[in-house]
Parts: sequence; C-alpha cells; structure tokens
Amino acid sequence: MSLTIIKGTILSAPTLGQLDALPGGYLVAEDGLIRGVYGSLPEQYAGAPVEDWGDALILQSFADLHLHAPQYPMLGMGMDLPLLDWLNAYAFPTEARFADTGYAREIYSRLARELIANGTTRVCMFSSLHTDATLILMEELEKAGVTGYVGKVNMDRNAAPGLLEETTEESRRETLRWLDACQDFRLVKPMLTPRFTPSCTNELMAFLGKLAAERDLPVQSHLSENQAEMAWVRQLHPGCQQYWETYAKYGLWTSRAVMAHCVWSDARERQAMRDAGVTAVHCADSNQNICSGVAPVRAMLNEGVKVALGSDIAGGDHLHMFDVVAASIRASKARRVLDNWETDFLTVPEGWYLATSAGAAYFAEQPGFAPGNHLHALVLADDDLPQPHPMTPQERLERAVYLRQGGAIRAVWSEGRKVFSAEG
Amino acid sequence: MSLTIIKGTILSAPTLGQLDALPGGYLVAEDGLIRGVYGSLPEQYAGAPVEDWGDALILQSFADLHLHAPQYPMLGMGMDLPLLDWLNAYAFPTEARFADTGYAREIYSRLARELIANGTTRVCMFSSLHTDATLILMEELEKAGVTGYVGKVNMDRNAAPGLLEETTEESRRETLRWLDACQDFRLVKPMLTPRFTPSCTNELMAFLGKLAAERDLPVQSHLSENQAEMAWVRQLHPGCQQYWETYAKYGLWTSRAVMAHCVWSDARERQAMRDAGVTAVHCADSNQNICSGVAPVRAMLNEGVKVALGSDIAGGDHLHMFDVVAASIRASKARRVLDNWETDFLTVPEGWYLATSAGAAYFAEQPGFAPGNHLHALVLADDDLPQPHPMTPQERLERAVYLRQGGAIRAVWSEGRKVFSAEG
Repeated sequence: MSLTIIKGTILSAPTLGQLDALPGGYLVAEDGLIRGVYGSLPEQYAGAPVEDWGDALILQSFADLHLHAPQYPMLGMGMDLPLLDWLNAYAFPTEARFADTGYAREIYSRLARELIANGTTRVCMFSSLHTDATLILMEELEKAGVTGYVGKVNMDRNAAPGLLEETTEESRRETLRWLDACQDFRLVKPMLTPRFTPSCTNELMAFLGKLAAERDLPVQSHLSENQAEMAWVRQLHPGCQQYWETYAKYGLWTSRAVMAHCVWSDARERQAMRDAGVTAVHCADSNQNICSGVAPVRAMLNEGVKVALGSDIAGGDHLHMFDVVAASIRASKARRVLDNWETDFLTVPEGWYLATSAGAAYFAEQPGFAPGNHLHALVLADDDLPQPHPMTPQERLERAVYLRQGGAIRAVWSEGRKVFSAEG
Repeated sequence: MSLTIIKGTILSAPTLGQLDALPGGYLVAEDGLIRGVYGSLPEQYAGAPVEDWGDALILQSFADLHLHAPQYPMLGMGMDLPLLDWLNAYAFPTEARFADTGYAREIYSRLARELIANGTTRVCMFSSLHTDATLILMEELEKAGVTGYVGKVNMDRNAAPGLLEETTEESRRETLRWLDACQDFRLVKPMLTPRFTPSCTNELMAFLGKLAAERDLPVQSHLSENQAEMAWVRQLHPGCQQYWETYAKYGLWTSRAVMAHCVWSDARERQAMRDAGVTAVHCADSNQNICSGVAPVRAMLNEGVKVALGSDIAGGDHLHMFDVVAASIRASKARRVLDNWETDFLTVPEGWYLATSAGAAYFAEQPGFAPGNHLHALVLADDDLPQPHPMTPQERLERAVYLRQGGAIRAVWSEGRKVFSAEG
C-alpha cells in the first residue's frame, strides 16, 4: 500500500460558498485515494513519513472543463475581433499547423507541463481535427499527469477550406481510428467533440450521437455563446426551437455532455440542461474578450444547473485557473451591474468551489477533500508576501486568486501521484 | 553630454488608436531628452555605443495616475465588499500602520522597486495622512527612479476614529510641514490630496484650494465612483448640484487636477472636466472589483475629456500596467454589452495609448517618443513564447498586454536614466 501524508493549512470547498480551513492539518491518502483530513495524525499512521509544508496552504487542484489545446500558441491574440471573424483570422490557421506532428509534440509537451505547474490536474479539452496530433496531446497530458478527457474535433462543413477541413466520411473514419488508438491511455480518455452545430452536418451529428450511445462516450461542444452564432444555428436547423435541441435531436444531449459558454441560455434552455444533467462550462474571460456577453451564472446555480469553469484558451487569455476564478468573479460583478444590482456576484469561496469541487464532480468525485476521492491537490506558499494583519486561510486564498503569484505553487498531486515539485 | 542609443523594434503610440512600429530602429536621447527615432543611425552618432536589443520591443514606459501606496500590503483582499465597507474593514486599518516609519520604509522600498521592475516610471500617488511616511515614500520612489507626484492625504472628518484621524488644525499644520520638507526632491513632487469630499471639512477644503492657488500645486482626489458615495456627497453639500462642484467651490477643480474613477460622471460633469482641463483617471479593475460600475470612457474620449489609467491598488488588484491595460479593454467590452452594443470597446492600441502617452501628457510630454520628451522607455523580450505565425510588432504588443510575462521586461529608463536591468 502506498501512503501519502501532507501537512499544512488545509483548505477545501465542501459546498458552494463555504471554505473549510484546518491549520496544521493532515491530508492522508492510501493508494491514491483520500482517507481523510485530520487535526492530529491518527494512531495508525504513527511513524509514517509526513510531508510537512508548515503554514503553506494545501488546496484542491483545479479542473478546467473547456480549453482548446491547439490554440495555446495564440494566447492573448486577436482579442479585438468578434467570434466568427476571430475563428477565421486566428483560430483556424493556428489549428491547421497541427497537421505537423513534430509541431504538435513541441507545443503539447509545453502545454501539459504548464498546466501541471499551475495546478490544473483535470480537463475536458478540445484538440484539432487531426487524429495523430490528438494522440500526441493525450500522450503528453498523461506523461505530465493531467487527467480527464480530450476530443478529436469533428467539423465537416463551414470550416476553413484548403486549410482545415474533413469530409463527413473522413471525419467518421478518423474518429473510429482515433478511438481505437485510445485504448491504452490510463488517465486521459476520449470525448466526442462536434466543434459546434454550424461545423457538423446532420449526418455527422447522427453518427456521433449513435457512437456516444453505443460506446457510452462523453460529449463536449459549444452552446449559445454569441448572438450571431445562434442566428446561424436557427437558420441551419429551422425545425429546432432552441440551440440545445440541435444536440438533443442527435443523442448528444446527455448527462455526460459538457457545453461551453451558455451565455444566452434562457430559462427554457437552462431547464433542458438541468433535466438532462448537462454541465454548463462558464468561460468568463473568453466571453468578455470576444464580446459575447455575460453568462447568467447566478441564475444557473439557483436553478440547480451544473456549472463548472473553463479557461477557454485562446478565447480566454489565461491558462492559470487562479486567473479564471478571478475573471469569473469579475464577470459576475459586470452581470450584477447589467442586472441593475439585482443578481448577487460570485464570492471568492463560490468561485473557488466552481473551479475545484464543481469541476471534479464531472469526474464523479465528491466535493472538497472527501474520503474516497482521488488525491488531487496542490501546495501554495505565500510567505513571501506582506501581511497587513494576521490573515485567515480564507483571506490568503482570496489573495492567491487575485494575485497569481509566480512560483507560489510548490507541489501538485494528480490522481494520487505527485506530479510537480518546485524548488522552495 | 550624455548619449543613449537603444536599438530594437521600436513601438510607440503617437495618437489614440495608432501604433507606429520600426523594426531595427534607433531611439536616441541626449542628456536624457529624446532626439528622435531613426531607421538608420544618423551620421553624427557614428561610432557611439549602441544598446542593441535585437528584435525585442522598445516601448514607452507606463504612467499610473492613481494608486494608494499604503494599500500595497492588502493587494487582492476584501474584494467581496462594497466601497464604504471595504474602506472601514480593510483600507483604513492597513493605512493606519504607516504611523510606523520602519514599516513604511520596508513596504515602500519594495513597492518602488516593483513599480520600476514592471515599467511604471510616472505616478500620481496617494500616501496616507502620515507626513513622515509620505516623505519616506517619496525618498524610496526617487531612489528607485519613479517620477511624478505624491500626496500626503488630508482627511479631517468621517475617517477612522482612534485609528486614522487628524483634526483640521493638524491637517493644515502637517500639510505645511510636509511641503517644506519636500523641497529637496528632484523627481517626485508634492500634490495636494483631499481624500474625497466626505473626508474633508469645508474649512480644510478651503485651505487646500487656497494653497493650490498660492503655490501652484497640482491636486488629486476621487470623483463619482459609487452611487452610495455620491448620495453622501449630496447630503454633505446640499448647495452643490453635482459632486465636482464640491471641488470647484474651493478652487480644487483646475487644469492640474486629477480625478480618479468618474464612473457616474454624466454629460454635465464631463463637460465641466473638459472645460477645466481636469484629467479623469480610469481605474477599470477597481471599479469592477468593488462593483462601482463601468466608467463611460468612450464617451469621455469622444467628448475630448482627458483620460489616463490608474491601477488604483488596492481597490484594483494589479500593480502591473500591462494588466491595467487589459482590464480597461475588458471593462470597455462590459460597457459595450451594458450599452446594448452601441459603444465601441477600447482596442489594444487605444488602451496602450491611455497607459502611456495619455498619462505622460499630464507631465507635459508629447505623445509617443516625440523629440524633446524625457526618455521613459522599457525593453520587452518575448522570444521565449511560441509563434503561431510570423507576428507583427502590434500583435506582439497585444500579447504582452494580455499575458503579463514574468521577467519579460529587461530594461527600464526613467527621466533619461537607466533604472532597471534584468538578466537576459
């Protein structure tokens, strides 16, 4: 049996809006599964080695439920363009380069290491449409210690002719080839990924829906991000009253579906999410950057819709989930102003919950450091910063969210294994 | 004569919305004053030493026209509270610690070095009400190479009794003592700083207005930040129709006045700004963090009001002006959504202009690297980042704005002098 005992100021998010703090606490895992958080070390572990981090914060690591790996090289670029123009001018040409497997290896190994060094241990991630590059991405993530789902993108219409395109038949064939080649991955699994409704013919959507049912596969896509996009979807599917129905019609609207954005999802669409158990991924930064709008996160939470956070690089410009939490809080304040101060903003404990416990829930984990969860954790040191007064663990977490302290993450565990360690 | 020649990709903001780029250009200064930007080195400088930065970007350094030095230790804290509660719970107790000059020395030397290392070479800055700490702040800024204005804060009512307070008489006496002690500073000058209307009795306001006129002193304060604050001001000055009139009434509304926030300044108040030549300082991050609202920056620019940017730490949570530019752009996009897509957002070149040329204008400089300006510049290297395609200097600047690359600033010049140099 392998045993991990981590000592420090343990802070976790057991429910939305609550943070539990235990200074000098012990986080214990056996064979990669959390046994418990204890104020003093239980008798049975007496004499076992303890990683003592003193007063440093021991936190849950992050789940980033929406990001585009092949857009990593264009982080922070083209932000003055609206969604559809930005796709054509930046995203598609950048993704097209991943036909080159050498380039894919170089960029994806860097991305995987940056994710881990910044405490992101779980993802739902878009690759490009390239099967080989997608397999390289999965290899690099698994090697670095990032767990979760990756999807080869399907797009057989309205893509970038001569640059980034596949026929329906190619899309089908490559998806099957990719799924066959995924068998050996242990921590990174495949996820069906129709780019978004305008990119996929009905025939391809039907194929993917059938595959999802036959092989019990999870699904990810985009939903109601931008008004121009929604008008386009209505035009393409005159028989569907709302955007979500274009997925539902083909069996892609399931409890294992992850839908990014949902900026313009109204009460009826949100109800459909709740009824099906679809997870909405809020990508605050991206929505603001490309002027999509501000998602009704508070309404979704109040109505019982599952909500997690995504960096959405490179519509979002931050890979670091501390920044993503801060961006979500800021967006909720913009939403509050937009709603004449009638909706509450996200508090820091709420934003933190969404980036950790709510994201982990998609992977069937319980909130916080619950016994039975896989050990996903990070150590954050902030002793280098001035202390205006004796700070509570909650205040220290708030500061970490806003400050993005370079080098503050000292260690990361993913799926029970220590995957990152910085010099102190 | 001292001569500085800097070679690299020179990028400057000569007008709002325009960026001039000159790869392989030479920026030449004599005795600290810019002579020009040249595509090839003029004959007269042949053989002179050239600092060759290769392809790195040579940029104007930043002007931060509103920040609170004694709030630096509480960066990123208390952001879930509204303005007036946040002042009482966080800002006032934190500022009170600067009665201790040893503490002031420790914090302010760190702040000054961080400003310079991040390319901020000009400021309009609030100190606390403590005269001695204010002088220490000015010493540390001057030593590090930060130029501009600092104000001992005046607040003789509605402060923090027993913690942070001064009588009208003390405020007057300490202001005079402080001004006397400021004579020897060369780069950092005093600026009258009534905290905001609710903090100053009419008697004190009248004293400060008289002083401003007699000694030709600049003035800084806060204006129309938050609706609760504005209601309070109306109650305190029933004779004034608008907030700005409470400053104008006492001679504090001049062409040398800098007013932070202006979130709720309507057309009439903006007209008063334009007529008097008052500079509005937009503090996007702070306004969003404490839910004040979103300032009508586009309207101000269209109407010819002078606008610059401020980090407003610690209402803002970023000291780095790259972040402040990005925050301003994001806020303008939130404003666009709020205005039903009827106002244009700030583009990257516009945001950059506001953080550099517009701020420098307050110090009587011409936009861009104009001949005759004092040399304020920085070198930014981004060769460590992936290149999705051959990038223009403008794209590289955009990415720098969004990414906040640690260690990317390699050198900084302030008022003609090289004040920072990093290992390459």
